[in-house]
Order: sequence, then structure tokens, then C-alpha cells
Amino acid sequence: MDIYQESLNLHKKLKGKLEIKTKFKIKNKHDLAVAYTPGIAQVSRDIVGNPNKAYDLTIKSNSVAIVSDGSAVLGLGNIGPYAAIPVMEGKALLFKEFAGIDAFPITVCTQNSFEIINLVKNISPVFAGINLEDIAAPRCFEIEEALQDIGIPVFHDDQHGTAITVLAALINACRVAKKDIKKLKIVINGAGAAGTAIAKLLLCVGHDLKVCEPVREIIVCDSKGIIFRKRPDLLENPWKTRLANITNKDNIKGDLRNAMKNADVLIGVSKAKVLNPQWISLMSKNPIIFAMANPEPEIMPDVAKKAGAFIVGTGRSDYPNQVNNALAFPGVFLGAIQARAKTITNSMKIHAAFALASVIKNPSADNILPSPLDKKIAKIIAREVARTWKKENLINLVD
Amino acid sequence: MDIYQESLNLHKKLKGKLEIKTKFKIKNKHDLAVAYTPGIAQVSRDIVGNPNKAYDLTIKSNSVAIVSDGSAVLGLGNIGPYAAIPVMEGKALLFKEFAGIDAFPITVCTQNSFEIINLVKNISPVFAGINLEDIAAPRCFEIEEALQDIGIPVFHDDQHGTAITVLAALINACRVAKKDIKKLKIVINGAGAAGTAIAKLLLCVGHDLKVCEPVREIIVCDSKGIIFRKRPDLLENPWKTRLANITNKDNIKGDLRNAMKNADVLIGVSKAKVLNPQWISLMSKNPIIFAMANPEPEIMPDVAKKAGAFIVGTGRSDYPNQVNNALAFPGVFLGAIQARAKTITNSMKIHAAFALASVIKNPSADNILPSPLDKKIAKIIAREVARTWKKENLINLVD
Repeated sequence: MDIYQESLNLHKKLKGKLEIKTKFKIKNKHDLAVAYTPGIAQVSRDIVGNPNKAYDLTIKSNSVAIVSDGSAVLGLGNIGPYAAIPVMEGKALLFKEFAGIDAFPITVCTQNSFEIINLVKNISPVFAGINLEDIAAPRCFEIEEALQDIGIPVFHDDQHGTAITVLAALINACRVAKKDIKKLKIVINGAGAAGTAIAKLLLCVGHDLKVCEPVREIIVCDSKGIIFRKRPDLLENPWKTRLANITNKDNIKGDLRNAMKNADVLIGVSKAKVLNPQWISLMSKNPIIFAMANPEPEIMPDVAKKAGAFIVGTGRSDYPNQVNNALAFPGVFLGAIQARAKTITNSMKIHAAFALASVIKNPSADNILPSPLDKKIAKIIAREVARTWKKENLINLVD
Repeated sequence: MDIYQESLNLHKKLKGKLEIKTKFKIKNKHDLAVAYTPGIAQVSRDIVGNPNKAYDLTIKSNSVAIVSDGSAVLGLGNIGPYAAIPVMEGKALLFKEFAGIDAFPITVCTQNSFEIINLVKNISPVFAGINLEDIAAPRCFEIEEALQDIGIPVFHDDQHGTAITVLAALINACRVAKKDIKKLKIVINGAGAAGTAIAKLLLCVGHDLKVCEPVREIIVCDSKGIIFRKRPDLLENPWKTRLANITNKDNIKGDLRNAMKNADVLIGVSKAKVLNPQWISLMSKNPIIFAMANPEPEIMPDVAKKAGAFIVGTGRSDYPNQVNNALAFPGVFLGAIQARAKTITNSMKIHAAFALASVIKNPSADNILPSPLDKKIAKIIAREVARTWKKENLINLVD
């Protein structure tokens, strides 16, 4: 039986992968009076005028909403809020299994940014964090940006979970390939949610963190080729215009092949088979290729290796170096919740990536990232994320 | 230690009364591939174009959102969405303990009807039902009314849970007091959410159901006295105007005392101590009093009995005949979910009330309703609710 049929059968049997568990059983009238009325009135009175107490006394202590409009689910595209439910439940499963977080899927039947922004703001009281998921670009950017000041972290995993995992992979790949992360020339193929977030996070490395210098040599390509300033079609896309303004410092033009000349790293977040193996020979010594299109990568690992790639990562679990954002988000949220962070800053993301990279003590070409099944990862990331938030806020308080 | 302190301590210890439980454990890569990517894609594909399959394959099979804006919580008033969380969690606890339903609290930081309506509509894909809770009148009416066609049941428990429980209590009280439910003269003191819903449900008895005739002799009072047609202040309140149009057939005027003359039943959903014991002597033989203001009733049971009341019910667990809506809502939702009902009709509510009343085989003056701890109640109600929905929809199909 193939994996698809097995999954369908499992879901038919379970009728959903999550359920609510009560932490307290009601056995008699007294239990009812303590857990519900009239006793509960005292708990409410304690929170009135002091909303932060909801973290001490309610499910807000540990809860995350996984919000999706079903517009960009896996490789399936715009499948809507019903078909998105099993994916978001799967995500909630990972939250619980890997970080002990109580996540609940909220799939919404609107794809209007304004409505989604309002909705997330309005449901925020009961949650300690919001995981935006599988929302198409560029809508995902405007939604996330508008929600940065609602008092709890709002984190679009397709962007930042991917970016953190890629950075962690890159840190270890550089160790193996003996490359200096601050001198890399990086090409990103794909300017959607993941590509944009990877570019922005890599540009922050060194700004927010003392461990290394900014990775400035970044060129992003989309389906029309290299993104450069004043590319005529960018006028209609403010997000790509922003990208053009912060990457490609020499403002070169051309196609992906052109971009790859002398590049150290090629990060593919685009689609299957777009990478011609011959272009790898144009790259600098010991080239690093992350080909993360799902399910079929931009280039198959064996083909890439044969063409000269030194390190190859993909999104797949059946090849070495799976760059899987399940490595990042459980720990990032765990740390943010533990610190009661109000947002997830770039510095927290970068520290999360270094923490994730540190899980592999002796990286090799086929071992730059741990397995997402390793349950200590979330704790290691969480500690750094929480520490970074606390440190930054102490600094803010002193300023 | 009093019950309030005990409740506060419990909540501090538990940090919330609910958690997410996963029905499937991830032990290896294969498990991950079945429960999440890539296997999950097949489950999503199965639902695309056939949203009803979400009931078979996801948490939608058994999930309810408890939505509150915190505007009318217990006797505490407008305490907002944070202080409302522990109450909604308590409600979710009852859903799980009494009916096995997975309910999740969604407290919202808007009290704008339009926004709440939109929000509930938008989050509906992942739920099999919506329990509106502790939303102030008259906003609760317009919100619930606007949500009746979203494809899943939307049920404001403060209205209908109370109305169903009151009707069940009345059915058994009539058996004990040897009164004919179709000839009752009923006074309802209180024209908020509960009072309005009780009046409307009692008026339906007999219309939707063959078992008895309409209870037409209903007079509703609010703080200004009897509600009658053309009462000048009603112009501003369309909901009370509707009430005036369907109750008080002789259009009498005056105060509560006036209304109580020759009444068989007095239902109080107002506030403490508003009922003068002397007025009970104005009622007909074997008067029935449900004094449900919380925590202190309109009249204390012993005082009412001394003044001539034959049967007395309150909202309290420390007196006989607790009229508690926890008796109704778990079974109503269970039945609605089992039948995949799209709404909860008056007929379903009336059948729920008769089912609830039937749990007490031999009612007596001090035993007209079962204890909410009796875990068979939900199943008994659910069976009738599901049966009624199916029957009505069969009829609709035949028409």
C-alpha cells in the first residue's frame, strides 16, 4: 500500500488527529463548583484588569492557533479551508509531539487580507501565539506585517520556519565546505514566501548578531529571471521591489544561469527540474545546493552531485540533508511562549538557526541537519529564542 | 477554604483546564510521512470539491467552538475576552466530560456584531457547531440570527440551553402539580437573552410538536413592568417589540404583581430578591416558581414555599430542582453533530426538552430534573435531537 492510501485510511479511522483532553475530571458536585460555577467567577475576577494573568490561569499559557486560508497548501495550491484542515491538524500534531504545545487549527473561509488580519487580532486573547500557515504570497506578507503589534507572536512558518532551517543548514554546510558565511555569494531561485524570507533573514545575519558579518551577496531570481532594481514588471509588486532594493548590489540582469556564475550557494524554493546540471559547473569551488521544491526538487541530489555539487539538501526525507521547517517552528514557538514574547524578532530567528545548527556536533556533507524526530531540538532552540527575547527587552528597557 | 479560593488555586496549578491530545504518535519517519507530508496530500485531495468529507477525515467530525465576547459573563457582566477564558474553558470541560465533544474556547476582542458575525462565519470550516456564549442582549439576538445559514448549527446557550431546561422542568412540574401544559398561564420576569428565548420556545410548544398544544398565555415583564404592544419605550428595541407582538394576548399593562394574578407559573431570569412573597398568593392553585437569578435567586426557595409555592426551582446546586443549562447543551450538540444538522430548529429544542424531562421517571415536587452529573442525559437528548433533524429533513425532501 502506498503512503497516500495509508494516510487516507488512517484519517478515516481516526476522524481527525486531535482531540481535547481535560486536565480535570468532574466526579461530583464539588468538582463542578470548583471547575465551573460558582468557583470560576474568582478566576475571572482575578484576570479582569490584568489580562496577563490569563497566561497563569488559562489555556493561553500554552496555546497556538494555526491559521490558514488554504490558499497555498503544500504543493496542492489553493485548495480552500476544508481541504486544508488535515494539513493544519498535522501541524498541530507536530507542535504537540515535538514541543508539547497545544495548537488548534483555524482554517478560514475568506482570502481577504483585511478580514484575516481582523480575525487573527480578534481571536488573539485565548492564544499565546499565532502560526500563519500556507497563505499565498504576497498576501502572507501584508497579513503578517499588519499583525506584528497585537501583543503575541505572529509567525508565518512558510516564510520564517523555512528561512531559519535554511540558515541552520547553511551554517553547517559552510563548516563542511570550509566557506566563510560572511563572504558567501548566494543565489535564491524563487521569490515567493520562502524565497523572500530566506533573503531577508540572510541579510540580517550579522546585523542583529555578533557571531558573523552580513551575508550581502544575495541575488534572487523569479520565473522571469534575476530581480533587479527598475525591472519594469516590479512596479506592480511592492514586495519584489523591496527585494530588489536590498539584494543584488551590482544590479546585474539576466537569467538564473547568469546569476549562478561564481555563486557559492544555490537555494531553490521554486519548482521541479528548473536547475540545469551544467550550470553547477559555473559556481565557485565546493558549491552548496539546497533544492527544496516539493515533492520533486529543482534538481535530483544524485544529478547535482554528479554535476559537481559538494553538498546537496532537499525537502525530502528519502535523501540526506532534509531541510524541513518542522525542525524550527516547534522550538521557536516554545521559546517565544516561555519568554512570553510579544513578537519574534530577526535576532530570535538567527539565534534559533545557530541553535539548530549546533545540534550537529560534527557536520559532514551528508549530515548538516538533525532528524526532525530528535525530540531535544525544540528545547535547544527554545532556550536560545527565549534568552534572546529577554536580552533584547532588557536592552530596550535600559535604552 | 472557600470554593472561590479553591478554584483559583486549581487554575494556578493547572494553567488551564484543557489541552490538545494527539490521537496518533510519531515514532519514526514513516509515521511522519503518514500523518503529515507527503501522505496528508491525499487526504486534502479527497476533501477538495467535497467539503463534507472533512466530517469523515478531520477534527470537524467532533469539534465545537465556544465563542464569546465576554460581554455578559456569569453574573460578572462585561469582563472582556481575557477574563472570559476560564469560563469558556469550563464550558469546554463540560462538553468533553458530558458528551465527549471536543470544544475549544474562542474569546474575541471585539464587541461589534458585524465583526463577530464575520468571524464566526470565517472560522466555521473546522467546526461541526458553534456555541455562542455569554454575549449580551440584544447583540446576541442579531448575531445568532445572522448566522443561521452558515451550514453548521449556531446555538446561543444562554438563550436556548436555558429555554430547553426550563421547558423540561415545566413538563415535569406540570405532571406533579397536575396542570395541563397547554392551559398554563405563564409569567416570565426578565426580557434579556434567557427570558426572550424561554418565551419564544414555550410559544412553539405544540406548533412544531404533536404532543401538546401551544402555551399561549405568556406575559413577559422587564424592569419597567409588563411588556405590552405600543409601550412607548419599546420603539427603540425591536426585540422587545417582537416579544410584545407574540405574548400578552389581552395586552394587559402594569407591574409584575399585576402579571402574577392567576398565573400558574412564574419564571424569573432577572435579579436577586425582586419577587415579593405576598404576590405568590395571587397565583392560581399549586403555583410553580422557577427563580433562576444567579447567584441569589428572585426569591429564596424556603421563602417561596412558605408563601404557598408548590414547586420551586433555582439555578443553584444547593437546593432541589436546579435548572442548569448544563443539562441541555451537551446533548443538543451531540445530537446535532451526530445528525450533521445544519441548524438547531425549535422542534429539535422541544424534543430535547421532552427527552430531558423523560430522564426523571417519577417526578416529585423536589425532583423535577436530573443532576447534570448523570452522564446518560446527553445520549438520551442526542438521540431525540438527531432523530428530529433527520425526520424534518426527510419531510423537507418529500415536500
